[in-house]
Amino acid sequence: MIKRELFFDEEATDEVVTAAYDALRAEMQSGKIGYYLLPESDMLTKIEVFIDDYDFDAKGIKNIVVIGIGGSSLGAKAVDSLLAHTPSRNERKLLFLENVDPVETENILKELVYEESFFIMISKSGSTIETTSHVKQIVARFDAPVESERFREHFAFITDAGSPLDAFGKACQVPTFHIPHNVGGRFSVLSAVGLLPLTLLGYDTRALLAGAKALKDSFFDHSEDLLVQKAYYYATHSKMFPINVLFSYGSAFKEFNAWYVQLWGESLGKIDKDGNHVGMTPVGIIGSVDQHSFLQLLIEGPRDKTVTMIKIVDFQMPTVIPNVSLPHLEKTDYINGHTFNELINAQCDATMESILQQGISVDKIEIGKLDEYNTGYMIMYYELLTSLCGHFLGVNTYDQPGVELGKQILKGKFAG
Amino acid sequence: MIKRELFFDEEATDEVVTAAYDALRAEMQSGKIGYYLLPESDMLTKIEVFIDDYDFDAKGIKNIVVIGIGGSSLGAKAVDSLLAHTPSRNERKLLFLENVDPVETENILKELVYEESFFIMISKSGSTIETTSHVKQIVARFDAPVESERFREHFAFITDAGSPLDAFGKACQVPTFHIPHNVGGRFSVLSAVGLLPLTLLGYDTRALLAGAKALKDSFFDHSEDLLVQKAYYYATHSKMFPINVLFSYGSAFKEFNAWYVQLWGESLGKIDKDGNHVGMTPVGIIGSVDQHSFLQLLIEGPRDKTVTMIKIVDFQMPTVIPNVSLPHLEKTDYINGHTFNELINAQCDATMESILQQGISVDKIEIGKLDEYNTGYMIMYYELLTSLCGHFLGVNTYDQPGVELGKQILKGKFAG
Repeated sequence: MIKRELFFDEEATDEVVTAAYDALRAEMQSGKIGYYLLPESDMLTKIEVFIDDYDFDAKGIKNIVVIGIGGSSLGAKAVDSLLAHTPSRNERKLLFLENVDPVETENILKELVYEESFFIMISKSGSTIETTSHVKQIVARFDAPVESERFREHFAFITDAGSPLDAFGKACQVPTFHIPHNVGGRFSVLSAVGLLPLTLLGYDTRALLAGAKALKDSFFDHSEDLLVQKAYYYATHSKMFPINVLFSYGSAFKEFNAWYVQLWGESLGKIDKDGNHVGMTPVGIIGSVDQHSFLQLLIEGPRDKTVTMIKIVDFQMPTVIPNVSLPHLEKTDYINGHTFNELINAQCDATMESILQQGISVDKIEIGKLDEYNTGYMIMYYELLTSLCGHFLGVNTYDQPGVELGKQILKGKFAG
Repeated sequence: MIKRELFFDEEATDEVVTAAYDALRAEMQSGKIGYYLLPESDMLTKIEVFIDDYDFDAKGIKNIVVIGIGGSSLGAKAVDSLLAHTPSRNERKLLFLENVDPVETENILKELVYEESFFIMISKSGSTIETTSHVKQIVARFDAPVESERFREHFAFITDAGSPLDAFGKACQVPTFHIPHNVGGRFSVLSAVGLLPLTLLGYDTRALLAGAKALKDSFFDHSEDLLVQKAYYYATHSKMFPINVLFSYGSAFKEFNAWYVQLWGESLGKIDKDGNHVGMTPVGIIGSVDQHSFLQLLIEGPRDKTVTMIKIVDFQMPTVIPNVSLPHLEKTDYINGHTFNELINAQCDATMESILQQGISVDKIEIGKLDEYNTGYMIMYYELLTSLCGHFLGVNTYDQPGVELGKQILKGKFAG
């Protein structure tokens, strides 16, 4: 159960709302944009068959190691962080080789037993320099040449059909799953990119897809005016409020916030058709901790932000603040006998009220509990919101031309 | 060795620069602002005596648990993250009870053996609701009443002299260290707040203080014009560039970025003397990972950001990308034989060039290696930069009146 509420005026006319529904439907129907259809794909069935055949338990696989960066890692990491405390989660470790930081890379690899590890190399093209460098390091360090059974038996690839990495998979008989060509990295968490690692961790990925499908269907039934209104407000006020703050109450949202930052920043930070630099800067913060960090700036700083509050109604952990009185600190006893769950949610409400009193544009998302269904719903929520903002801003939401220049300069540094 | 370079024009006149030096000196000499003098305080000596007397090894203490939030936790966490891979670091675990997230709290407490744990409760006043709630939970869960030896032997307090927490410490004979009244939470990492946990982890905290002192002395010798120029540029362009991005190349900087976010946001996000909402929004990102997340927005999005690049010259980890050729991915072989250290630094340089080509205001900080001295230097660098920006913006850098309203609303929710 997810409840949503906007505390600012809905300004889009019926025509504007209908045109937005139609624009996203056209993207879907043209086949140009594929993420809308991921909840209905048969990829999960293929993955389940693969997992059954491989028999991970019998082979003693204790570590799932995702080798990928950006859209290839942030989605699975976000979902696992949200759901790690749920009963679905098995004991396997989920590790990520992302950054080419030498210390971090070494810290991860030195603890790994190759025989107990299954590596998932993820890249749309295959040529991501961070990802290939990590794979080369593994091949050499664990003496697993790419043509060997030792390599083949411990690796899977996730990539576009026909990509160089796909060809590598064919050449070396590595199990390979495809990302649809029309699904970009940052919109790929509900493809094999997220489904393979998350299913291997025990999660009910069917429910994840079902949650995403529920919101997607509701949207294409034209029942999500609130979502369209929020996107319209953000896009039409993007010069007044160039910063969007996602204020999530719950430590489990840290990685979800990071996933949102990529989705939002990379999709909307663009040169529009008139040559203007447009977009909005995403900032993800966590309650209650960041009440002691970012809140002062929100309340008294420049009025350049919108704020979305995320609240989890039931954390499913009933820990109580006991009836203990600390000498000289008795004025904190008003909270005794209440749960931590009550405290963090009251903090969320109180903080939201204090932000609203400043006249800041706020909306609220209340999630009943963290489970696969609601997580899938939240993923589709942010993907649709991003597409809608891109539509209203008049940008290409799905490319990222700005990152190419740095890659060219990098290659130049090692040339010759 | 830390090298700094601005890639934008220095616009402050000699008079403006001198006035800034004088303003900070006046803050220090008036006794109103105390962080400037922390590198010269005798607190570390007291802490060393306490640690010797307590004999943590003989008592089998394996976990240092900091109970504190915001300025009471972010500093020690930042330093430990930067230095965790260095030889100084002992085997003790450093844990933080910060957020009142029920799942996170439970995850930390369920793994703790009380007898092997030493708890440091940190709060300037003592009445922080998150901190007291955690302490109450520990008292009840581990059967350690506040009057008992069991409590007294496993706790230390860090607080202001004369605060309610100080009185609690006296009443129950808990070892208590004082934060100077004129040192705010977010400027307190070089007080007992950081020094006690960091010394307990084996770090050379004398070198940490020495690094901070070196920059502070250089500043008050009027040898840090570049720092003043940077602050002046930021403050005078704060409406044009309301977002400051700290782009740190190295995973170890994640927590340092978080420390910077609090320092910057909470110090500068203020209502100025003319009643205007001023300040700049801090965004901390990590290279190379966030090249795949935030970079597109930087390059093509609105021109509302300044960028500081941090680079570590020598990661002291010589891992090489081996001479392995992956079938069909041979075009990535240009990096073979180079170290990860070379790759991440070349990425830093290439990304900086691509950002500079957009005409964005960039500066660079090059740190020779991560050690205690350089870490102390970086802490003082950002503290001085923050004070200077506050001076130029005309705000009170050291208070945080905006967070009080939410606290009042929260209490009201539990009243009666």
